Amino acid sequence: MKLSEAQKAQLSMLLEVSSSPKPGNIDRKRSWDDLSFFHFLGSSVAAFPALKQAEKSDSIGKVFYKAVKETHFHGENTHFGALLLLIPLIKAAKETESEKKIEKEKIRDVVQNTTVDDSVFFYKSFNIIDVYVPSIENTDIDIPDVNIPNNISEVKKRNLTLYQIMEKSACIDGVAKEWTTGFKRSFNAVDYFEPELNLGDTISKTYIKLLSEKRDTFVQKKHGEKIAEEVRKKAKKVLYSEPQNGWKKRAEELDKELINRRINPGTTADILCSSIFLGLNNVLYIS
Amino acid sequence: MKLSEAQKAQLSMLLEVSSSPKPGNIDRKRSWDDLSFFHFLGSSVAAFPALKQAEKSDSIGKVFYKAVKETHFHGENTHFGALLLLIPLIKAAKETESEKKIEKEKIRDVVQNTTVDDSVFFYKSFNIIDVYVPSIENTDIDIPDVNIPNNISEVKKRNLTLYQIMEKSACIDGVAKEWTTGFKRSFNAVDYFEPELNLGDTISKTYIKLLSEKRDTFVQKKHGEKIAEEVRKKAKKVLYSEPQNGWKKRAEELDKELINRRINPGTTADILCSSIFLGLNNVLYIS
Repeated sequence: MKLSEAQKAQLSMLLEVSSSPKPGNIDRKRSWDDLSFFHFLGSSVAAFPALKQAEKSDSIGKVFYKAVKETHFHGENTHFGALLLLIPLIKAAKETESEKKIEKEKIRDVVQNTTVDDSVFFYKSFNIIDVYVPSIENTDIDIPDVNIPNNISEVKKRNLTLYQIMEKSACIDGVAKEWTTGFKRSFNAVDYFEPELNLGDTISKTYIKLLSEKRDTFVQKKHGEKIAEEVRKKAKKVLYSEPQNGWKKRAEELDKELINRRINPGTTADILCSSIFLGLNNVLYIS
Repeated sequence: MKLSEAQKAQLSMLLEVSSSPKPGNIDRKRSWDDLSFFHFLGSSVAAFPALKQAEKSDSIGKVFYKAVKETHFHGENTHFGALLLLIPLIKAAKETESEKKIEKEKIRDVVQNTTVDDSVFFYKSFNIIDVYVPSIENTDIDIPDVNIPNNISEVKKRNLTLYQIMEKSACIDGVAKEWTTGFKRSFNAVDYFEPELNLGDTISKTYIKLLSEKRDTFVQKKHGEKIAEEVRKKAKKVLYSEPQNGWKKRAEELDKELINRRINPGTTADILCSSIFLGLNNVLYIS
């Protein structure tokens, strides 16, 4: 089974949503009231033409906008963050020389070469889809607010590239932070995968490890720092309590708790998705 | 979300394998020892280039061979039967005029127009993949045995088109029967979908209805007529016992039993897949 970069990205989306448990997020055994596992299957199928385009197109913003437009369900967000990570990774993978590994410099180039046009498409995406972003009024984050539709003209006036937008939001957004750190956490997480576990289990466990190491920024935006930190600590406990091999049962309990409290660490799931994509080149196999 | 015919076929494969319970078959909650839900995700992703080609190519056999070559895992069969149904359906859908419904005459044309070349590719597929087909020696089925590799020359010598191969195997194979009856069961099953149920449930229930109406030919080949008939009757009981809304619990029990006995109604799952494809045009929605 030899897959193109776009196919690997699609498979990453499917493996991410299928792996269970992923406390607080949708998986193959867990749907929410308004969004289900099936929506994520549909979104993964619908995303493919854009993923394919990412192999060739120069404009990450344009491809991202296309992907968002084609994957949403009545404005509900399925893969917004995941696509924002996967699209530059696909491009970098296509441009990279090694067969097995994406060069880290290449991914830096790809995101740093984004333009003002890319930003415009990025801002336009928020008109289609309902992504929770709190107002940045009265904060130090100096970019046009994505919640204000006519801010596209301000993006143009200020000549902000998509990379610059990400730089300025990196302090509050884990996906933006990946853009500005050469996808550091995504690359690190590849080393977390344990090929001796079955595929679903090693993906779940990597999710929990990611959740335990940094506060999820989506949780932080929606529920505040204190709860984000509480979730991080709880994930740590899931992973490191005794007996160690009881992590899965403890993860299922944390899943129930987070679902009841409507806490959804979406950024961690997005980063998991990009680490699966990177892992499919060398450590993750369906065998 | 507007999908191409190839995308609809891919989504059908994903929805089929995800719907649970499907007594005896893999679903999102049920893997076997040697084959898992994840293999089916991988196979659905890997099949896409061939599905896309089916939108344009004249040769069903060639596209089918490509699909089989790209989707198998160490020769394990994932979507052999499903692809044999989906590929002509995609072609018919592309050639059909109505936006919503595949014309039944079109699908008849597509399969009846297959050539000897298509048969050759079909026979070649059995060299790649481990599909259980019992020997037809000492039976009335007068085609070259797919289990004998050098039988390709006999196919050529006898000038057998793929449609003729299917005609001659229709009496023992449910997928071949679909080819020769204008995909009758697949079209009928579209009416079984109940849009008021959730998507996974209506697909599961349609599977059980299909299983209850005809003996599964894969079970029949592997375990004999008596067991195939027993399974059919048990599926009927699942569906029609009181209380009617207890069908899902009863289906889960039948699933356990069939898995323990290693009985896998694969043909029914294949036909379910093609009926999902047809249903996606009008009654099945991810909404």
